[in-house]
Amino acid sequence: MYKCAIILAAGEGKRMKSTTPKVLHKVCGKEMVNHVIDIMRIADLSDINIVIGKGADKVKESTRFRDVSYSYQDKQLGTGHAIICAKEFLKHKKGIVAIFNGDVPLMRAETVKKLIETHENNGYKCTIVTSLLNDPTGYGRIVRREGVVDKIVEHKDCNKEELSINEINAGIYCFDIESLVKSLDKLNNNNAQGEYYLTDVIEILRSEDNTVGAMIVDYEETMGVNSRVELAEVEKILRNRINKKHLENGVTLIDAENTYIGADVQIGQDTIIYPGNAIEGKTVIKENCVLYPNSRIKDSIIEQGVSIQSSVILESHIGEETTVGPFAYIRPESTIGKHARIGDFVEIKKSTIGDNTKVSHLTYIGDAEVGEDCNFGCGTVIVNYDGKAKYKTKIGNRAFIGCNTNLVAPVEVKDNSYIAAGSTITNEVPEGSLAIGRAKQKNIEGWVDKKGLKK
Amino acid sequence: MYKCAIILAAGEGKRMKSTTPKVLHKVCGKEMVNHVIDIMRIADLSDINIVIGKGADKVKESTRFRDVSYSYQDKQLGTGHAIICAKEFLKHKKGIVAIFNGDVPLMRAETVKKLIETHENNGYKCTIVTSLLNDPTGYGRIVRREGVVDKIVEHKDCNKEELSINEINAGIYCFDIESLVKSLDKLNNNNAQGEYYLTDVIEILRSEDNTVGAMIVDYEETMGVNSRVELAEVEKILRNRINKKHLENGVTLIDAENTYIGADVQIGQDTIIYPGNAIEGKTVIKENCVLYPNSRIKDSIIEQGVSIQSSVILESHIGEETTVGPFAYIRPESTIGKHARIGDFVEIKKSTIGDNTKVSHLTYIGDAEVGEDCNFGCGTVIVNYDGKAKYKTKIGNRAFIGCNTNLVAPVEVKDNSYIAAGSTITNEVPEGSLAIGRAKQKNIEGWVDKKGLKK
Amino acid sequence: MYKCAIILAAGEGKRMKSTTPKVLHKVCGKEMVNHVIDIMRIADLSDINIVIGKGADKVKESTRFRDVSYSYQDKQLGTGHAIICAKEFLKHKKGIVAIFNGDVPLMRAETVKKLIETHENNGYKCTIVTSLLNDPTGYGRIVRREGVVDKIVEHKDCNKEELSINEINAGIYCFDIESLVKSLDKLNNNNAQGEYYLTDVIEILRSEDNTVGAMIVDYEETMGVNSRVELAEVEKILRNRINKKHLENGVTLIDAENTYIGADVQIGQDTIIYPGNAIEGKTVIKENCVLYPNSRIKDSIIEQGVSIQSSVILESHIGEETTVGPFAYIRPESTIGKHARIGDFVEIKKSTIGDNTKVSHLTYIGDAEVGEDCNFGCGTVIVNYDGKAKYKTKIGNRAFIGCNTNLVAPVEVKDNSYIAAGSTITNEVPEGSLAIGRAKQKNIEGWVDKKGLKK
Repeated sequence: MYKCAIILAAGEGKRMKSTTPKVLHKVCGKEMVNHVIDIMRIADLSDINIVIGKGADKVKESTRFRDVSYSYQDKQLGTGHAIICAKEFLKHKKGIVAIFNGDVPLMRAETVKKLIETHENNGYKCTIVTSLLNDPTGYGRIVRREGVVDKIVEHKDCNKEELSINEINAGIYCFDIESLVKSLDKLNNNNAQGEYYLTDVIEILRSEDNTVGAMIVDYEETMGVNSRVELAEVEKILRNRINKKHLENGVTLIDAENTYIGADVQIGQDTIIYPGNAIEGKTVIKENCVLYPNSRIKDSIIEQGVSIQSSVILESHIGEETTVGPFAYIRPESTIGKHARIGDFVEIKKSTIGDNTKVSHLTYIGDAEVGEDCNFGCGTVIVNYDGKAKYKTKIGNRAFIGCNTNLVAPVEVKDNSYIAAGSTITNEVPEGSLAIGRAKQKNIEGWVDKKGLKK
Repeated sequence: MYKCAIILAAGEGKRMKSTTPKVLHKVCGKEMVNHVIDIMRIADLSDINIVIGKGADKVKESTRFRDVSYSYQDKQLGTGHAIICAKEFLKHKKGIVAIFNGDVPLMRAETVKKLIETHENNGYKCTIVTSLLNDPTGYGRIVRREGVVDKIVEHKDCNKEELSINEINAGIYCFDIESLVKSLDKLNNNNAQGEYYLTDVIEILRSEDNTVGAMIVDYEETMGVNSRVELAEVEKILRNRINKKHLENGVTLIDAENTYIGADVQIGQDTIIYPGNAIEGKTVIKENCVLYPNSRIKDSIIEQGVSIQSSVILESHIGEETTVGPFAYIRPESTIGKHARIGDFVEIKKSTIGDNTKVSHLTYIGDAEVGEDCNFGCGTVIVNYDGKAKYKTKIGNRAFIGCNTNLVAPVEVKDNSYIAAGSTITNEVPEGSLAIGRAKQKNIEGWVDKKGLKK
Repeated sequence: MYKCAIILAAGEGKRMKSTTPKVLHKVCGKEMVNHVIDIMRIADLSDINIVIGKGADKVKESTRFRDVSYSYQDKQLGTGHAIICAKEFLKHKKGIVAIFNGDVPLMRAETVKKLIETHENNGYKCTIVTSLLNDPTGYGRIVRREGVVDKIVEHKDCNKEELSINEINAGIYCFDIESLVKSLDKLNNNNAQGEYYLTDVIEILRSEDNTVGAMIVDYEETMGVNSRVELAEVEKILRNRINKKHLENGVTLIDAENTYIGADVQIGQDTIIYPGNAIEGKTVIKENCVLYPNSRIKDSIIEQGVSIQSSVILESHIGEETTVGPFAYIRPESTIGKHARIGDFVEIKKSTIGDNTKVSHLTYIGDAEVGEDCNFGCGTVIVNYDGKAKYKTKIGNRAFIGCNTNLVAPVEVKDNSYIAAGSTITNEVPEGSLAIGRAKQKNIEGWVDKKGLKK
């Protein structure tokens, strides 16, 4: 059967106190609405329509790589109105539509699958996601009859018996598309707020003798975010869930409560992660790595056996058994070979570093292609910018770059060559040669005394 | 009505195991006694007297900018004795005195205000701050009669009925000054410890038919600190309180439990703060900043749109939209312009950096005034010290400083000038000129082979 | 009486999902089996035999400095079988043997002492460590008669009355050696799993009318580790225990939940430790130090009054009142004097730095012996490696090393000498002299315009 999803993402979220639309606030490094989209996709809901309104352009921009369509809700006139705005998306479709909120990032994909199954297997026209709460004050109650849903009663309209019901409406639904579309035409806003309520559709369906089901889901999965305090709560729950998964997969987290791993990060067995690390985006960390405290790694591939300490690595690839840091900064589009060393106070920018090459300390390599088995002395700088443009540097294999050397790009250093400490290299260094460009030392005896500098 | 406060800060705090007087231990970056003083001031108690004793000089030193007076308590002979020591402060005064402990930093200013109001509005001669405890074992119980306080009974003196009372004396009071002073004259130390108890004043007041009131306060606010374990507990409570306030103001804290923000820090809306940051002192962070993990920022102004990563910033000013770090160190009295860049492994010391200037990596700028739109190559060093004195450097606008350059201060680099990589600059660089001071490169072919250095 | 211990460490720990044997996973920086060995030693059990099997070589390697003997258990045929494998160790011995699991690192030494005492004082042939659980489901129950143990009944064999017993077998025992050895000969594996159970020895002892005792221990102390989730739980408990001890000793931990201190670390009174620090191995930190956030310190001695910020210090010695960092890296075998300064972006490798010497920024010192009262300019590099071998550098007292200087080892810089900024030093610098080796500055006026570089 055809299945699709509508995600409500038009609200402003005033309590967030933000110029960013609510659904774009991030949880574990990913916008809430993108969490919801990704969950839907895992649950085989591929055709997804986002209802946007407040900050529509920003929401479109942030979801642009996720192959979704959009409906516009100019004014926020209730959840029913939001779906009315998506009528074009639903037109002529037969099948199932799941309706989710863009601020509910903790729902599990398996729950969504189960919701669809429950809906399909029982022939419901609508299936409501519900939760059981110890204190349901303020929520709409689910009044059941013979197992299925008779009606939803808002808290303020509850009689005494209904007040004691602790099954509440989570605001997430599965609908038969045609039934929903027909019902939308009958929706009205004859109420105090002048809004169109999606819950009225349930009433319309029931008045026409359709069966409405309900599926109870752990409250945690249905939690919506309306403030930064709730954002922090949801972040903590998802962080714990992610970290528990890695622990169960055979990763050691010294302190899971103080380790920040994005929802889409992969980590191999026997990797040990110290506290204070933030691992973000699409990062993949292979087996047997050690991450000492306090690194930030984003959208990078870390091959097995790598050790990283107090460093920042962005959009790069680190080869097997290489060590990084402490205090290294590897910037986007860098590729570091195997058994290499990127040491302390080293910046690598958009460069390739060959296997076994050591860049041990206080060095900058930018826009360069460096071969294997090279050694960079301390204080080496690749001068890749002349104030107008950036130039490339090429260094062969087994080159030895002396300390405090400048390599003024564009320049090439050939295999097996050697540069004396303190040289500024502006021309090619031929294979097997020594390049030197520095003044000779002179000692002026007695100078310190004469200058009165003696302590 | 005239109002003043006495803060008891003479105790040693043996269980702290410290050479620092107890009230000077810090909670969220501020000494406990200063927390109490600041709370009193917010509650409009401006005339404050501190009773000091153990470590008196240190307490005076740490409170010297807070415009308080001091009384001396040479020997610690009880709370009553402490107030006797402050008699000079109270002499000839009419009105209200609030008596607080210097080790109770969690009291809220609004609670203090409410205490004063309760005291004034009811015409009490004394109002006691009390708390309700599930387990009041060990505490003095508040015995009430017709709503007001009849007496305080110490735990060891309680009869069975009194033992069941769970309202306890928090040791914080409001007094009618004249009644208090008169009662002090009647205080004695005829007890096992030979001490003067302030609670005996209550008895004296009651024996003269004065009305003593009590105000119940959340126990948390009355918590005193007697050990490092309690210090850590109080710190955690205050940290949560501070962080919740920022969340409610529209600041995103990825993990509020792992973010350390001082009591007096201000943060603008839509600023995002990653875990592991410590923000201290009088720091102000404006809107839309991003603080990636693991920076320490103290007494600084961070303008809006600034991004900071793994850096240390002390007593400085960072302009709008500037990026700092990772791994930058900005030392006191520095001013960084707008849209500037202070990059990795860069130290700025007591310098001014103009708008749009880039100091991208591995550079030291000290005692310098740098203009706008300059570019510092990697490895630049301002040589501001000759072993005897420090000198100033002045760099104009749009200067390009080549990599691994030394600028030997005092020196001036004029507008639009250019310095070649690897130069040591000892004289002025005129406007629009190139300065160069380095040896020419020579290649010695075959040298590596000859030296037997080939790998 | 002679006492010894057997530690069972032959299991694989499949649920750990690891190629590392279970007992070698670390808790607070120390392998679990080594925790158990160290606890035994504190409890005066000096003769220790480890039963190894899975990963035997790795376990031997990791315990090699702890003076223990080994028994081999080739196949994992039950706890009884493990002890049978250790029969050679027990042969001809009279006295007491304690049997522990290598994956139970939270047992306290005082509990072990109490176990031995309970065993000895009551003349038991066996004493079982037990715990009281609210939910004992799945555990073997302790059936007592007249205070002592009648039998242990496995959960699946319990009758209704036995199911209600909440005292469970923790799998830790004390035995009379001769009784144990005799009983082992009677053990069989006539059971569903075909394994030899140590609990059957209890039955054998009881059938011969020996008295078996039990000692109830807090469940936490008996917790075994079978998965990374449990490893993280145990780590957290031990971390809290360690940190509480330091708080009680007069150390300030701003956030004990985010401070990582190894089990064997010592810290002096009035030292203040900010969050995010990891202090490992045998590190000793003396009184009145301040550790700002985010350092890692391993196997080092930090003398009193030292301040450290965002740095990594390994196997080194830091003298009194010295400041380190932010962002310093001190590598093994370094000794830093008193009142010295190792500043930002500085690496010290295998070097000695004298008292009052300042290495303030962007400097590398390797394989060097540096005297007192020296000053290193920014960007100084000791060129200790020529691509083939490493060489030593010796710097006297009161030397002033100019910025961006190279000191090409082997080289000596004598007392009171001075090196000009930007020099490369290849020969000895005599006492009191100035060494200089750099090109002179030339200014080429109008060059920027001519080159079209003007912005």
